[in-house]
Amino acid sequence: MGKMSVKPPSGFRDFTLQESAARTALTRQIEDTYRSFGFQQISTSVCESLATLQGKGGGKDNEHLIFKIMRRGESLQKAFAATTVETLDELTDLGMRFELTLPLARYVSRFRNDLVFPFKAFHIGNVYRAERPQKGRYREFIQCDVDVVGCDSWGAELDSLQAILAVFFNAGIEKLEVQLNDRRILDAVAKSWGISGPDWASILVSLDKLDKVGTKGVREEIERKGFANHWENIESRFFADSASNLASWQDLAPKEVENLSLLSQGLCSFCENSSFSVRFNPTMVRGQEYYTGTIFELHHPDLQGSLGGGGRYNKLLELFGGPKTPAFGGSIGFERLFLLYSKSIGKSMDKTQANLTSLEVFFPVFAKDLRLKLQNYANQLRRQGVCAEVFPESSKLKQQFRYASQRGAKYTVSIGPDEFTGQSAKIKDMASGEEISVHLKDLETEILARCRP
Amino acid sequence: MGKMSVKPPSGFRDFTLQESAARTALTRQIEDTYRSFGFQQISTSVCESLATLQGKGGGKDNEHLIFKIMRRGESLQKAFAATTVETLDELTDLGMRFELTLPLARYVSRFRNDLVFPFKAFHIGNVYRAERPQKGRYREFIQCDVDVVGCDSWGAELDSLQAILAVFFNAGIEKLEVQLNDRRILDAVAKSWGISGPDWASILVSLDKLDKVGTKGVREEIERKGFANHWENIESRFFADSASNLASWQDLAPKEVENLSLLSQGLCSFCENSSFSVRFNPTMVRGQEYYTGTIFELHHPDLQGSLGGGGRYNKLLELFGGPKTPAFGGSIGFERLFLLYSKSIGKSMDKTQANLTSLEVFFPVFAKDLRLKLQNYANQLRRQGVCAEVFPESSKLKQQFRYASQRGAKYTVSIGPDEFTGQSAKIKDMASGEEISVHLKDLETEILARCRP
Repeated sequence: MGKMSVKPPSGFRDFTLQESAARTALTRQIEDTYRSFGFQQISTSVCESLATLQGKGGGKDNEHLIFKIMRRGESLQKAFAATTVETLDELTDLGMRFELTLPLARYVSRFRNDLVFPFKAFHIGNVYRAERPQKGRYREFIQCDVDVVGCDSWGAELDSLQAILAVFFNAGIEKLEVQLNDRRILDAVAKSWGISGPDWASILVSLDKLDKVGTKGVREEIERKGFANHWENIESRFFADSASNLASWQDLAPKEVENLSLLSQGLCSFCENSSFSVRFNPTMVRGQEYYTGTIFELHHPDLQGSLGGGGRYNKLLELFGGPKTPAFGGSIGFERLFLLYSKSIGKSMDKTQANLTSLEVFFPVFAKDLRLKLQNYANQLRRQGVCAEVFPESSKLKQQFRYASQRGAKYTVSIGPDEFTGQSAKIKDMASGEEISVHLKDLETEILARCRP
Repeated sequence: MGKMSVKPPSGFRDFTLQESAARTALTRQIEDTYRSFGFQQISTSVCESLATLQGKGGGKDNEHLIFKIMRRGESLQKAFAATTVETLDELTDLGMRFELTLPLARYVSRFRNDLVFPFKAFHIGNVYRAERPQKGRYREFIQCDVDVVGCDSWGAELDSLQAILAVFFNAGIEKLEVQLNDRRILDAVAKSWGISGPDWASILVSLDKLDKVGTKGVREEIERKGFANHWENIESRFFADSASNLASWQDLAPKEVENLSLLSQGLCSFCENSSFSVRFNPTMVRGQEYYTGTIFELHHPDLQGSLGGGGRYNKLLELFGGPKTPAFGGSIGFERLFLLYSKSIGKSMDKTQANLTSLEVFFPVFAKDLRLKLQNYANQLRRQGVCAEVFPESSKLKQQFRYASQRGAKYTVSIGPDEFTGQSAKIKDMASGEEISVHLKDLETEILARCRP
């Protein structure tokens, strides 16, 4: 066969050294932040049985997102013999998860007896979507979820949202906006107008597009769908100046408005002295079929679309056969967070990255038979967490020092045959060019004083 | 549809809270250790094009390991129309990686112009194998690789192996054994006996089973394969008392023996004062077709089979169309490392886990309208990295304290209406039962003094 492609499949990515290091650093920061709010890490498998992914929690809407894995061996042969173009799914048995909420619901149902409720979980992992790849839309990406299961109070919603906002705050991001709404307020509107469930769902899909297509676009789509008779009501409810004032919805859903108002107050208190903001957005709907109450989305002025979102899903866990269990959760889209993170730390990024991708100490090898001794000194430093390297080949010194400079080494430590005889080492600061001579027994102390002051 | 299964598919796993926390902690330790040796992190996609996975690097041996992903939409319909039971692969376009070396080779080939050589990479990620699940054998598991690309010296081999041993050492594991061999020594034997490549490959497969089936078993298999005429030679070479002495192979492959001897010396020096050991094992072969020189495996007395391994693969990168590029790499099987790690830290595990899964500070909610104030105090502590929680519901205090105790909270901080009036808080040490009263402005200092002494 000919030479193979060096690229990953369309929609999949490799990450550069800088990206890989920064992504790991950001992931650790997210884990630590979620943990500081009392959330506990869970992890689930990337592959789920197709039946789970296609169940009601996933829903028909998401069917086209699933990467399906072909059966193997005899099971495949047998399935193929019985398959027509209409039943191609029979050739597959597994699918790749396209979000983390369904796996969480399965997880909690499985370990219900071992968990302490209210159960506060965080869940970070790859998800896969068989969408057409576009700029900024990938087929493999990371989601970072928090969920509180077994608690129907706004306190759980505040907890989750604060943890999510803290992640953005700790990542140095400014001007984040939280948009809040409640599915039950939307349903109360439909009920008061006598609109059926399916009709209302279709209208909501159009309303949700406000940010993308504007009021005129929403109106046209609603009329095209045959709901022109409702437009006057919709306009006066959703597009009035007062619509963004939560209190103006109190007549329809007093309890839900009080809930959102408490949540909003808690979030505003958290955002005080920051550039973050919180607002009620009655046309924000979100797609997932499983939401039953409060929903939210995160937006940023530099990016179109949302950076994350979530909501209350009080009925999802019943799909797995357990008792009625209220739950609320939210998800951060890692890829868009990372985009802002990379920008936000701007110049300080160089410093962060330097710590993660650069060498701290480089030992050139002056003579073959010195390698093992040099390794011992390097290992002393590594045990203290210092990133140290002995050049793996016995190349010309010029080549070795070029490598050290390309790798951004902060210090070189030269110990040649003469130095070993005199029990000394030369430490050179690669930035200033300054060089000092130290006794070998002081090498570790001297390096630590410089690298870990 | 009926209720859905709470379990992941066969061979896939969920992890408990304790496991998840410990796996994350171990992963960080591995990353930090590899980084301290000057290896830089890379990351590649889980899915590769089938052509890459089925190419010569993967090899026919591994074909059955690949989870294949079905095409979608029109492309699937079209493929199905033309597919027979012999060409079922045509229905698929992607596959899940079953190891990390092939993706690394692709990565280096892709970014060749941006990398500094010798390029020292580390690569940690999930791999997937469509094997029949067994005790301890999973379909989704983590590998932790290091590789040095662009260096043909034993210095690169020493670097990689030291980093791998340091991971085990830092994880508190004892009695690890490194077994070394060289494919070129084995090939020199075949050449000296005039055995053809394919025959020799078949004999090596049998030799490699020594640990499992013993000398008698190896002999029987070799005879069954029709190589009885070679047994006498094999026995006197490979099963003599002197066989484990590297020097006894010097006549056949002097250069390779010198190389292994230097490597072995370097590793022994690294293992000094530890319970680790290093030995030459002439019957250790390893399966991958792509190895061209030094190979190694890691073994532990408590576990059957290897905990990791690797070798030199000087021809793999050419598959991607670049120039001849020597490379050496090794892989740690995370799952088996984790098994030993969990055991080795034994009781100290509780302590490690407590830090990762337990609450440090719990704030009970004495009255609904105090929640936001409590959140502010909790957030002060969280900003200092302390894991703090405010109970999300306004339940009875008894229930709240039961939750705190179940979650292993170290301290509870009680601030009721009276305390707020008096600007004081009660800090209770949950282990000793001791309780002190502090001024609210000193709360952070007092907690930090206890949690971060």
